[in-house]
Amino acid sequence: MTDFFKGIPQIKYEGADSTNEFAFKHYNPDEIIMGKRMEEHLRFAVAYWHSFAYEGGDPFGGRTFDRPWYDSGMEGAKMKADVAFEMFDILQAPFFCFHDLDVRPEGATFAENKKNLEAIVDIFAEKVESHKTQLLWGTANLFTERRFMSGAATNPDPDVFAYSAATIKSCMDATIKLGGANYVLWGGREGYETLLNTDLGKEADQAAKMLEMVVDYKHKMGWYGAILIEPKPQEPSKHQYDFDVATVYGFLKRYGLENEVKMNIEQGHAILAGHSFEHELALAGSLGLLGSIDMNRNDYQSGWDTDQFPNNVPEMALAYYEVLKAGGFTTGGTNFDARVRRQSLDAEDLILAHVGGMDCCARGLKAAAAMLEDGKLEAARDARYADWDKPVNKAMLESGDLTSIQERVLADNINPEPRSGRQERLENLVNSYL
Amino acid sequence: MTDFFKGIPQIKYEGADSTNEFAFKHYNPDEIIMGKRMEEHLRFAVAYWHSFAYEGGDPFGGRTFDRPWYDSGMEGAKMKADVAFEMFDILQAPFFCFHDLDVRPEGATFAENKKNLEAIVDIFAEKVESHKTQLLWGTANLFTERRFMSGAATNPDPDVFAYSAATIKSCMDATIKLGGANYVLWGGREGYETLLNTDLGKEADQAAKMLEMVVDYKHKMGWYGAILIEPKPQEPSKHQYDFDVATVYGFLKRYGLENEVKMNIEQGHAILAGHSFEHELALAGSLGLLGSIDMNRNDYQSGWDTDQFPNNVPEMALAYYEVLKAGGFTTGGTNFDARVRRQSLDAEDLILAHVGGMDCCARGLKAAAAMLEDGKLEAARDARYADWDKPVNKAMLESGDLTSIQERVLADNINPEPRSGRQERLENLVNSYL
Amino acid sequence: MTDFFKGIPQIKYEGADSTNEFAFKHYNPDEIIMGKRMEEHLRFAVAYWHSFAYEGGDPFGGRTFDRPWYDSGMEGAKMKADVAFEMFDILQAPFFCFHDLDVRPEGATFAENKKNLEAIVDIFAEKVESHKTQLLWGTANLFTERRFMSGAATNPDPDVFAYSAATIKSCMDATIKLGGANYVLWGGREGYETLLNTDLGKEADQAAKMLEMVVDYKHKMGWYGAILIEPKPQEPSKHQYDFDVATVYGFLKRYGLENEVKMNIEQGHAILAGHSFEHELALAGSLGLLGSIDMNRNDYQSGWDTDQFPNNVPEMALAYYEVLKAGGFTTGGTNFDARVRRQSLDAEDLILAHVGGMDCCARGLKAAAAMLEDGKLEAARDARYADWDKPVNKAMLESGDLTSIQERVLADNINPEPRSGRQERLENLVNSYL
Amino acid sequence: MTDFFKGIPQIKYEGADSTNEFAFKHYNPDEIIMGKRMEEHLRFAVAYWHSFAYEGGDPFGGRTFDRPWYDSGMEGAKMKADVAFEMFDILQAPFFCFHDLDVRPEGATFAENKKNLEAIVDIFAEKVESHKTQLLWGTANLFTERRFMSGAATNPDPDVFAYSAATIKSCMDATIKLGGANYVLWGGREGYETLLNTDLGKEADQAAKMLEMVVDYKHKMGWYGAILIEPKPQEPSKHQYDFDVATVYGFLKRYGLENEVKMNIEQGHAILAGHSFEHELALAGSLGLLGSIDMNRNDYQSGWDTDQFPNNVPEMALAYYEVLKAGGFTTGGTNFDARVRRQSLDAEDLILAHVGGMDCCARGLKAAAAMLEDGKLEAARDARYADWDKPVNKAMLESGDLTSIQERVLADNINPEPRSGRQERLENLVNSYL
Repeated sequence: MTDFFKGIPQIKYEGADSTNEFAFKHYNPDEIIMGKRMEEHLRFAVAYWHSFAYEGGDPFGGRTFDRPWYDSGMEGAKMKADVAFEMFDILQAPFFCFHDLDVRPEGATFAENKKNLEAIVDIFAEKVESHKTQLLWGTANLFTERRFMSGAATNPDPDVFAYSAATIKSCMDATIKLGGANYVLWGGREGYETLLNTDLGKEADQAAKMLEMVVDYKHKMGWYGAILIEPKPQEPSKHQYDFDVATVYGFLKRYGLENEVKMNIEQGHAILAGHSFEHELALAGSLGLLGSIDMNRNDYQSGWDTDQFPNNVPEMALAYYEVLKAGGFTTGGTNFDARVRRQSLDAEDLILAHVGGMDCCARGLKAAAAMLEDGKLEAARDARYADWDKPVNKAMLESGDLTSIQERVLADNINPEPRSGRQERLENLVNSYL
Repeated sequence: MTDFFKGIPQIKYEGADSTNEFAFKHYNPDEIIMGKRMEEHLRFAVAYWHSFAYEGGDPFGGRTFDRPWYDSGMEGAKMKADVAFEMFDILQAPFFCFHDLDVRPEGATFAENKKNLEAIVDIFAEKVESHKTQLLWGTANLFTERRFMSGAATNPDPDVFAYSAATIKSCMDATIKLGGANYVLWGGREGYETLLNTDLGKEADQAAKMLEMVVDYKHKMGWYGAILIEPKPQEPSKHQYDFDVATVYGFLKRYGLENEVKMNIEQGHAILAGHSFEHELALAGSLGLLGSIDMNRNDYQSGWDTDQFPNNVPEMALAYYEVLKAGGFTTGGTNFDARVRRQSLDAEDLILAHVGGMDCCARGLKAAAAMLEDGKLEAARDARYADWDKPVNKAMLESGDLTSIQERVLADNINPEPRSGRQERLENLVNSYL
Repeated sequence: MTDFFKGIPQIKYEGADSTNEFAFKHYNPDEIIMGKRMEEHLRFAVAYWHSFAYEGGDPFGGRTFDRPWYDSGMEGAKMKADVAFEMFDILQAPFFCFHDLDVRPEGATFAENKKNLEAIVDIFAEKVESHKTQLLWGTANLFTERRFMSGAATNPDPDVFAYSAATIKSCMDATIKLGGANYVLWGGREGYETLLNTDLGKEADQAAKMLEMVVDYKHKMGWYGAILIEPKPQEPSKHQYDFDVATVYGFLKRYGLENEVKMNIEQGHAILAGHSFEHELALAGSLGLLGSIDMNRNDYQSGWDTDQFPNNVPEMALAYYEVLKAGGFTTGGTNFDARVRRQSLDAEDLILAHVGGMDCCARGLKAAAAMLEDGKLEAARDARYADWDKPVNKAMLESGDLTSIQERVLADNINPEPRSGRQERLENLVNSYL
Repeated sequence: MTDFFKGIPQIKYEGADSTNEFAFKHYNPDEIIMGKRMEEHLRFAVAYWHSFAYEGGDPFGGRTFDRPWYDSGMEGAKMKADVAFEMFDILQAPFFCFHDLDVRPEGATFAENKKNLEAIVDIFAEKVESHKTQLLWGTANLFTERRFMSGAATNPDPDVFAYSAATIKSCMDATIKLGGANYVLWGGREGYETLLNTDLGKEADQAAKMLEMVVDYKHKMGWYGAILIEPKPQEPSKHQYDFDVATVYGFLKRYGLENEVKMNIEQGHAILAGHSFEHELALAGSLGLLGSIDMNRNDYQSGWDTDQFPNNVPEMALAYYEVLKAGGFTTGGTNFDARVRRQSLDAEDLILAHVGGMDCCARGLKAAAAMLEDGKLEAARDARYADWDKPVNKAMLESGDLTSIQERVLADNINPEPRSGRQERLENLVNSYL
């Protein structure tokens, strides 16, 4: 045991009336919601990077945190792993997620990186054996080191493509070894800083080739996990190719991968792309591509990722509503990058960020489940489209053509009278579950 | 002849040194650029709606203009047509574009609308015979009248779908009769105001059905013109389905229409979607879907469409560069919604808005052509990707897999050193043509 | 009695468990909060314009509503007044607000406008006598009619300045006669569309002169009410002079009016200016300038005013927290422009929009009051600044200078160690009241 | 001589037809514009931080550049100073600007920082003696080190206030010793991350006290230079107190400092605050507070500072127009943070970024001067307000009151007819100078 969290108790459910900061008031893992334990619904995963690798920097200032594992190579990486699982225990977190660079020191060569990662994965393998916490997903960090500055799969330099492929193989191997449920690709540098030096066609083909190799490797390894792309419109790049759910869908269709790959959708990224989170989730759901979520939000007044833990329950309820409507998580779960603010220096802050976030998610889930079970919202939605079930309208959708429809409009003098969209009463209805 | 433009001369090219407000300083239709007349490159089209149907309103105020054709039914529509062609003559505009509602009064029934439209189209048919100005594209206004408030093709009410289909047929018939070069669909109400009352899956199928019928009708009529979708992310709707080029591409692929439909891309809509205009053009170009452009820009500090005439030459040069790189316009052209500001009350303002916009386009085109002919920018771009031409890298892209690539990275100790992206010198290079 | 709201009952408080759409679940006017009735805290005012004058238009479409009072001159205005007070009764609203143009038809001359307004004010005077509902504030619409297209007080044409002054006098007279509690100035056209034709210095002086005359007239009339400016950064203008609270403060200081004028702060306007609502409220509070609020929000994904009724309780709680911290409303109150969506056609929608908004406000107020009474948040804030109470630090703030401070830093080797800002636990704390 | 810029020639003016990348095509220091040498108009200053201290990092990746002076303490700082002045020579830059932290290594104590700074300032003092390049302004970096994470002057910890004051004194001393023309304060951390832990009133008083001490110290030292505040709305903080020009003006008025302090206005910051650059400049000009400018722009599609060198000439022309209208620079100048992109690794990139930026500024200035000398734009503006010169209108502005104005409106039946704002022809006019 390290003493990083010394004095902080394991977090237990104490109910809504508790005033204990170090207790769940709403997240009760064993509570049954729609026939399933709350823990199995939410499938919380702690993000290794923000919790243990983020140092408090921002574009105008460096490290503010002071963690004993910083700047200490493999020894630090091991201590970090110990602290991480201590935190997972404190939170009783069922899952975690990581990039290779979060968990191992950067070596001088690819071989060294591979060796470092394997050493840490051996440690993780023991830990997931003996702890409750399992791996939700693994991923490769192909954006921090300077070699990736112009992209990974989409780099103009084929050697970077090769280096990236080699790194992804290491990370998939780690994920498979640890029994991870998904493998995620986030292309923070797959995009451009200026269109002037960029060949969109070439880079799209490169990205597709990399994804095809990932899918092939999954099948070759006989792995059951899901491959997930995480959309983001920009930052760090001026433009990122995996802009949003609709864009990624088009990319998958273009290269015939739409049955092989799903999506990991983040609240903050949805907002940066000009959408609501529930929009992105509903769209992915309607396309059969909703894999997993990153719950972390941004600040609405800031034009960049802040990766804060979620705390607006009404918004979160709408998100879980779309998840539940799409059938709930299968391999996916609720990762949330509870990146504490750079002024939140203390170990306590790190724990409380997660406690608050998990509690808000629980409240959101419960409201969403009540809303779905009650059925009023879906009934109102269905009623709005009910006329499409009439034979004449079904036929029009199946086999209509402009000429015959125009004839019918003229013959019947069709002159539709608008009907209320009832937005306000639906918003009231949603609020009644909150 | 009406007297609306009384005293305003025909606009002629006088060269860069002219100080005559009512002259082109840069747009010289007959100047040869890359082997083609400037007029044939730019293919300017005047937008009927903003020039003759917009009344100066905004969300906080009503009509400010005072045009003699307002509120006068078919008589007004005829006068409007006369004035329109007088303006086309003054500008020597090779094309115009229109919605049905721009050119005819709204009737009480669909039959009346059809009759009104046909009467005006008869007038237009005479005018395009006797004037230089031809039809670049026609389109249906399926967003102004209250029946479309919840969508046209994507309306929950099948009668609105039918009414929309009937209207589109009328507008396609008009376009075909007038020898139009394209038919455009802009779905300003194809989207939603609240997700709470919306079924994304149903509405996507409805939109696809409508588009299929449009394509079928084109083929049935043996028409040569292009079908174009115009993306816009929002406004008037909170969310519009044809969000941007990437989204429309995914939609076309989903329903197998990617070889039947291209896009009409607008500068202001690109910006609202979080892209640069050149991004949207380059993406459409790389997908083979660049059909036509709407040059009108928005105000960078305003969060809504302002549809102003274009006036920033450096930005316009980058846009025409992508157009030229994609092979230039075939059926498409440069429509620009030179919507004069609501404080620009005078007939002169309307003319000068177009003169200024056309001149800026000419400057942009000339710079773009010089840049493309010079070849330095493309050479720099190609050089950046040159290593992909090496056999080992070609092979990797064609038949590589993660395992063999990782082996090669380890064996060769591949450790790529980043190379400068040279953004600043490329930006200097671009400025050297301006 | 009109039959516009036929069948809709008066809205009564039924408690949180009610499932009656036409009941308050949280707004209980008589409930005592911090020693005062909830009604007296919230001081709800219904906005006449959005409820009765808005016709459902947006920039891409016209009227969607169908109200019996449209297009009917003074008769319509009278029916509208009857319906308005019927709605006030249904909601038991303590206040309403209006612009002159909301309540009277536009005449051909100023004299006619004055007469029309006076006729309606006579009717209102009877109604406020016999109804519970009183006037929170009156204001002049100096933005809809085309004469104001280039500004009212800040118009380059002095005649528009004069016309505006005359109109304001009428509206102030109406407000005073009706016993209104405040007079509001919102300068939607006091700004510019292009800087190229604008003289910022001249227009600032004109705006100041108008405000001085308003203040003088208030004193001349011996009126007790408050003069309030409502900030908004843009829309309809590209730039509006009353950009935000800080800007208006600077303007008031520049012309020595900071003790005469307070502010009416709107949630949606705060967001458009790049602030959170609570920021604007806290800033106004700290400057002693918080007068009244407009609770209506915008859509976070839309770049323009949507003026929807408020429905996110956590955000509203933070707003009321700042109101309560500043001492609560005196003359001001909670106006909310519950502008129903243009697809919300029915009379029921109008009522339910208000019911939902009022309930959310009530929930927000209760949470805010609990938070303030509990004191933990303020205690945490105060503790953060506690070191400033030490004599050495007090002295530094009062009479320090760079030289002596540097000497002390060197002498004492002051090297401050940062302390956690504790943002996450404060956010958890806030959520514990919700 | 270091060999960092080996092979790069001194940049000379070669005229618009030159195709030499390493030459000015437009910036001709000795060319006379409006009676003054171009160099004296523009007063270019190279920003030390971006050119020599920025390492290529962004929020998702670390250092990409590889400069020989990194990680080398005082030796590195000296080499950096040598390289800096070599670059100034290459560019023939008349000025530079710096923060203390740009030029010296960070020490363990304040005393060490002071000593380090003084050592470098001694070196600078020799260099400014023997080189053309002088100091435009100095400033203190009160945002990078972790001690400033919660603010400098506005920190809840008085020791940080003291440390900041001590640091400012060092930096003012350095500026004065080097004969700097201005001293700048940019409060990147003077703001908040969350309102929940912030006391706006206390922090405003602290900020004012610091500024008062700066002003007092200037006077005590008998220094002629100008004190400048640089507004920015956010980033790194969620909210920064010096939001924009209007906000800073209000702050100065509140504390009676409006005659002591001017502003340094940055293009990118203006955009982040929701303004055009020319708006901020025109406003500062009209308030008599325009001190100096930072020309660096952001990317319009990115929601954060990119600090790129300016390259859009039409926008820059409008900026210099406002500078010239305000009388041109006195102590101020054109600082531009030509922060090369993190992919621009080479020494050449650094030089070319400045060459391109300076050339664009020269083009902008020349267009602005032509526009101002020609007088058409000002004549059109003046004509718009001409009616205010009539006696009746002058009197109204000086001594009007609501009552008498209303009487006049009624008596004369004033019913103003709107006049065209002529925006399009003014935009055409501007383009005619470009």
